[in-house]
Amino acid sequence: MNPFDDEYFMKKALQEAQTAFDKGEVPVGAVIVLKDQIIARAHNLTETLNDVTAHAEMQAYTSASDFLGGKYLKDCILYVTLEPCQMCAGASYWAQIGKIVYGAREPKLGFSVLETKLHPKTKVISGVLEEECGLLLKRFFVEKRNLN
Amino acid sequence: MNPFDDEYFMKKALQEAQTAFDKGEVPVGAVIVLKDQIIARAHNLTETLNDVTAHAEMQAYTSASDFLGGKYLKDCILYVTLEPCQMCAGASYWAQIGKIVYGAREPKLGFSVLETKLHPKTKVISGVLEEECGLLLKRFFVEKRNLN
Repeated sequence: MNPFDDEYFMKKALQEAQTAFDKGEVPVGAVIVLKDQIIARAHNLTETLNDVTAHAEMQAYTSASDFLGGKYLKDCILYVTLEPCQMCAGASYWAQIGKIVYGAREPKLGFSVLETKLHPKTKVISGVLEEECGLLLKRFFVEKRNLN
Repeated sequence: MNPFDDEYFMKKALQEAQTAFDKGEVPVGAVIVLKDQIIARAHNLTETLNDVTAHAEMQAYTSASDFLGGKYLKDCILYVTLEPCQMCAGASYWAQIGKIVYGAREPKLGFSVLETKLHPKTKVISGVLEEECGLLLKRFFVEKRNLN
């Protein structure tokens, strides 16, 4: 039995999403894993940094490449709590990431419905801890609505 | 007569592309303009930074948002020497950029052929100084091939 399964790493991504939540950021978190080791952790920081490019995935790619000293992430897995958008899926094409595992679906602006081209070697798994990932997002938007 | 036309600003983007070329980077340059003023300049730095997300446009968005103190670029124009990819077009969706003006076309991995969704308010103009922008890219790849 390997304790390092998809749920294990998605929980780590969820911890990042919770950190984003606590900062008032749209709660999306990501980790990048190489051979069962987390080499990058990140959460959405678009508000804090005033920067639309500061999605969790984008920061995770940058951080993982920095760690590895090379810009390709062929043997790495991205775990992210929300389905990546066009920008983040587009970046994954360039990074040639080995696998994308995501939690909640994004039926409007996710890469699946918008048919963003992934790298031919990138595998995709969806719906891991989907409910927990989605609930945190829902809670964020409900609280935000009540505050405004 | 307004001297600040699309060709004027594309020439500034081309200067950035030339800087990238001189560094051994794929020569793509970008500037972001607000009310006839350049508020951000950037060039591709993927090799230097070991980071696939370091396209000229991405850095230009970050820089322009930093300058403005806000993450939306609704009244801004992006001038870029090469047609943006999915990642950069995807980022422009979030930035709600007012207009994208590009030089050379990217028939394989450009956002047009891949049908990346732009923000509904974003206008697009293509082919400004197309030949100059394309020639610099061709020259880069020819030289690279001869070196290897």
